[in-house]
Amino acid sequence: MCRIAAYTGPDIPLENIIVRPAHSLLEQSQHATEAKLAVNGDGFGISWYGAYETPGLYRDVLPAWADDNLINLCRMVRSHHFIAHIRASTVGETSRANCHPFTFGKWSFCHNGQIPHFKAIRRRMLAALPDYLFDAMQGTTDSEMIFLILLANGLEDDPAEAMRATLDQIGPMGEDGPTKLTCVFSDGQSLYAFRHASSGQAPSLYASGILDNGGRSLASEPLCGVALRWTEVPTDTICILTADGLTMTPLTAQAAA
Amino acid sequence: MCRIAAYTGPDIPLENIIVRPAHSLLEQSQHATEAKLAVNGDGFGISWYGAYETPGLYRDVLPAWADDNLINLCRMVRSHHFIAHIRASTVGETSRANCHPFTFGKWSFCHNGQIPHFKAIRRRMLAALPDYLFDAMQGTTDSEMIFLILLANGLEDDPAEAMRATLDQIGPMGEDGPTKLTCVFSDGQSLYAFRHASSGQAPSLYASGILDNGGRSLASEPLCGVALRWTEVPTDTICILTADGLTMTPLTAQAAA
Amino acid sequence: MCRIAAYTGPDIPLENIIVRPAHSLLEQSQHATEAKLAVNGDGFGISWYGAYETPGLYRDVLPAWADDNLINLCRMVRSHHFIAHIRASTVGETSRANCHPFTFGKWSFCHNGQIPHFKAIRRRMLAALPDYLFDAMQGTTDSEMIFLILLANGLEDDPAEAMRATLDQIGPMGEDGPTKLTCVFSDGQSLYAFRHASSGQAPSLYASGILDNGGRSLASEPLCGVALRWTEVPTDTICILTADGLTMTPLTAQAAA
Amino acid sequence: MCRIAAYTGPDIPLENIIVRPAHSLLEQSQHATEAKLAVNGDGFGISWYGAYETPGLYRDVLPAWADDNLINLCRMVRSHHFIAHIRASTVGETSRANCHPFTFGKWSFCHNGQIPHFKAIRRRMLAALPDYLFDAMQGTTDSEMIFLILLANGLEDDPAEAMRATLDQIGPMGEDGPTKLTCVFSDGQSLYAFRHASSGQAPSLYASGILDNGGRSLASEPLCGVALRWTEVPTDTICILTADGLTMTPLTAQAAA
Repeated sequence: MCRIAAYTGPDIPLENIIVRPAHSLLEQSQHATEAKLAVNGDGFGISWYGAYETPGLYRDVLPAWADDNLINLCRMVRSHHFIAHIRASTVGETSRANCHPFTFGKWSFCHNGQIPHFKAIRRRMLAALPDYLFDAMQGTTDSEMIFLILLANGLEDDPAEAMRATLDQIGPMGEDGPTKLTCVFSDGQSLYAFRHASSGQAPSLYASGILDNGGRSLASEPLCGVALRWTEVPTDTICILTADGLTMTPLTAQAAA
Repeated sequence: MCRIAAYTGPDIPLENIIVRPAHSLLEQSQHATEAKLAVNGDGFGISWYGAYETPGLYRDVLPAWADDNLINLCRMVRSHHFIAHIRASTVGETSRANCHPFTFGKWSFCHNGQIPHFKAIRRRMLAALPDYLFDAMQGTTDSEMIFLILLANGLEDDPAEAMRATLDQIGPMGEDGPTKLTCVFSDGQSLYAFRHASSGQAPSLYASGILDNGGRSLASEPLCGVALRWTEVPTDTICILTADGLTMTPLTAQAAA
Repeated sequence: MCRIAAYTGPDIPLENIIVRPAHSLLEQSQHATEAKLAVNGDGFGISWYGAYETPGLYRDVLPAWADDNLINLCRMVRSHHFIAHIRASTVGETSRANCHPFTFGKWSFCHNGQIPHFKAIRRRMLAALPDYLFDAMQGTTDSEMIFLILLANGLEDDPAEAMRATLDQIGPMGEDGPTKLTCVFSDGQSLYAFRHASSGQAPSLYASGILDNGGRSLASEPLCGVALRWTEVPTDTICILTADGLTMTPLTAQAAA
Repeated sequence: MCRIAAYTGPDIPLENIIVRPAHSLLEQSQHATEAKLAVNGDGFGISWYGAYETPGLYRDVLPAWADDNLINLCRMVRSHHFIAHIRASTVGETSRANCHPFTFGKWSFCHNGQIPHFKAIRRRMLAALPDYLFDAMQGTTDSEMIFLILLANGLEDDPAEAMRATLDQIGPMGEDGPTKLTCVFSDGQSLYAFRHASSGQAPSLYASGILDNGGRSLASEPLCGVALRWTEVPTDTICILTADGLTMTPLTAQAAA
C-alpha cells in the first residue's frame, strides 16, 4: 500500500506538494492515515516534466525520510507537472528498477494496490507485449507490467479504452483476493488516474479543487493546507486533470453501445 | 527508539534470535509494541563472536526487512555470542558508520535512547577522549561517543565503574529533556547492559530465563517462544549475563562508601 | 568483463581466497590484468555452502573495495565450498538482483562474458522456461537466464549435456559479435565450469593445483601465493573440480556418435 | 585522487559539462588520464545554484557511471553556476556525508588531494573551530575540515587571506609526505580555486577560455569540445572565475609587506 501525489499547474518547487503541506507525501510516508500499513519505507520516486518531452526520473530505495538528496531536489527543482510515489513493497525486490514511477517515452506511471493473481497471469501478459515494450521492462513488479500493458493497449490514442482493455486482460480476481488498482499517470500534458477494485474498495485517491496558485493536484490522502476542498475519486472512475479542470467518467462504460 | 537483541550460550544460527521468534527483532522492526515509534527503518547491524577475539560486524542502512543479505547471514552464520540492533534514527545521518553496533578491539556496543543535550556536551566529551579512541570515531552519533567514553573510563577493568563515570560525564539533563540510555555491549565473554534515565523510564530491556538450548538472551521486548520467562531489567541497574547466569546490581551505588 | 574465484576443500575463512592472496579477487577488482576493463566496480557476490543444502548468498552493488561488510564476512565466515564474483556490468541495471552468483535450490551460478544477441533471443528463451524456473527469475541479465536455461536442460542429471543443450539454444552468434561464456557453478558437491566462445577466446579461467591446505580453486586469474601451479582451462572445455581432483572434457563432443 | 568540474555563465543543463563533453567528468570517472588512479568510483556529488542563495546538493556513494538518477538530474536541471566532483577515497568511509561538495550556507566546496599528516593535526583543527562550524561537521574527511577551517578563517570577507591562513594552520608537511590541495569552491557568485603543494605538484586544474555559450569552466582535465583553449592553473595560485573573466594571483604573497 503506497502513497501517491501529483500536480499540474504553474511552475512550483516540487517541495510545495511533496514536503511542505502539513500532511505532505513525505509525512504520509511515516504516518499514513488511510493505508493498511502506516509506513512506506521501501523506496520512492518522482517523475517531473520540464523543457523536454521525456520526463526526469529520480528513484531510490532508501526510506524517503532518510534521503537528503530528495529534500534538496524537492527544494531546488521547479516543475509544472509531476508525479511522486512512496512505496511499501508487496511484489518485487527493493531495487530502483522496482520503484515507481515507471517511464516510457513521454509517459510516466505509478500504481498503488495489487493483483494477487499476478503470478498466474504474468507469463501470458509478458507474451502479449510487443517487442519494443517487452524490451523496455526493467524490473519485476506487477505495476510496471500494468503500465506496459496500458501502452500496448493504445494509451496514446484512447486512454479510457486502454484502461478498460487492460482490466479485461488482467481478468477476474483469483483465489487470493480482489485486484485493486489505483493508478496515476501522465503524458506530460494531462494527469490521468483511475481506481478499480474487482471487489471492495481500491486504495484511496483524492482530486483537489483549485490550489492557491491556480494548479491542481491528485493525492492518496488530501494534502492539508494547499487546497480547501478535496474530492474523493470514486472507485471504477477515470479521472483526467488538466489546466482546464477535472473530468471524471465511469471506467466500466465499455458495454455502452 | 531502537530495538536490541543479544545472545550468549551454545552456538546457534543468528536467525534463531533475530528472525525466527514470533516477536523476533526483525518483526519488532516493523511492529514494535513497547517503543514510541512502531517502525525502525533506519538501518541495522549485528556483531558476532567466532574464532577470533575481534567480532564480525555487519551493518547496513536499508530497512532490515528489505535486506536479503541479512536473512542469508542470519540463516548461515552460527555464533555463541552476538548482539543485533535495529535503528530508528534520532541523531546522525543514516550511514553505515552511524549504525549500531560499534566495535573497538574485542568490544561491541549498541544503544537505545538519547542524550537530548548531546550537542551541548559533544565538544567537551570529544576533548576528553585519549587519541587512540578519538581516532577510532567513524560517525557522528551520541551512541558511538558514549561507547568511546565508556572505553576511556576503564570499561576493560571495571565495567560498573566505567558506566558510573560515563553517566557523571554526561552530566545532568538539559532543558530538552532527560537522558535515557539503554545500552547492551560485550567483550566476547559476557553480555553487559544497563538502563538509565535521568528522569522517567529508559527504553525497555528484558533478560530471558534459560532458553531451550541452554543459552540466555537480552532483548528490548521478549522474543516470544524462545523462553518462558523474561525479567524486566529495572532502570538504573547493571546487568551481566554469562553462561553462569544473570547478575543485576544497582547502577547508582557509587555514593556507597 | 567480470572476475570469478571459487574454492572446494577443507573449511577455510572466505578471505583466504577472496582477500588475502597477493592477486586476490578483491585486488583483481581494481587491477585486473587479463580483462578488457581493469575495474570491476558494479557489485559483487558470494555463495557459500555450510550446514544446509541451500547455499548462503551475499550480494551488493557497492564496489567490493568499499564494503566493510564484505571484509568482515570474508574474515569471519568459514566454508568448504564457495564461489565469489565481482561484476563489471554489460547488461542489466546495477541492482542486487543482477549481481552474481544466482542461486536456485542447492545450485549457485556465476558467469563472465556476454551474449551480444541476447536481446534477440530473450523472449524465446523465456518462453522455453518451465513455470517454476520462470517464476524464479529476479533480474534482467543474460547471466541469470543462462543459469535458468541450464537448469531447465537437466543440469541436475547430466551437467555436460545441459551445457551443450544450452549452447544449442543460445544459437549461432549474431551480427554484434561472438557469444563468450565462462561459467562457474556448483551443486555444493562439485565445482563445475566451462569456457565457450562462438569465435575467438572466452574470458580466462584457471584451475589450481592442490593448495597448501589440500583444497583446490578456480579463478579468472591465478591467485598468487596459494598454489604453485595453475592450469588454464581451455576454451570449449568442461571442467569439474572435486575433492578428488580435476576433470576436463571437451564441451563440443555432442557430435560424437 | 578525485576529479572536479565547475561552471559559471548562462543557464545550461548540468549535463553540458558533466556528461556530454568527449572527456566529460563522467568519462573521467572511468578513464582519468592525469590522475594516479584511473578510476574514481567512491561516490560523487553536485552543488548547483538556482533561485535561492543556498545551493542544491546531490551526493551518492554509487560509482557515477552506474547512477541513472545522476544522468536524469544532469539532463533536466539547468543552472548558471555549479560544481561537480567524483571521488576516489583516501580518507573517510564511503558515505554520502563524506562525498564532496560540502555546503554551508551559500558556500559549496570540493577538494582533490590530501593532507598525509591529517590525523596528527585533526584534533587541533577541530578545537580551533567555532561552535557553529564544529556543529556543522557531518563526516570524517580532511576535505570537510579544510572547508570549515576556511570558513573560520574569514572566507566570506577575504578569500585569499582565508586560504593563506588555512595553509598556515595545516602547517608543514609531515613524514608521510607533502600536503597537496586542489580546491574549488563558490559563494554562488564567483568560482574560487587554488592549487597548493608543500612539495611537488598539486592535482591538476585547468581554467577554460570562453565557452561557446559565453560561460567559463574549471576542470581537473580539459573537457574536450566545449572550449578551444584551457589554461593550466599553476601551483600556489589563487584563481577567481566570474562572468567578467579569470583572475589569478599568487597564493603565497602573505610575506609581501
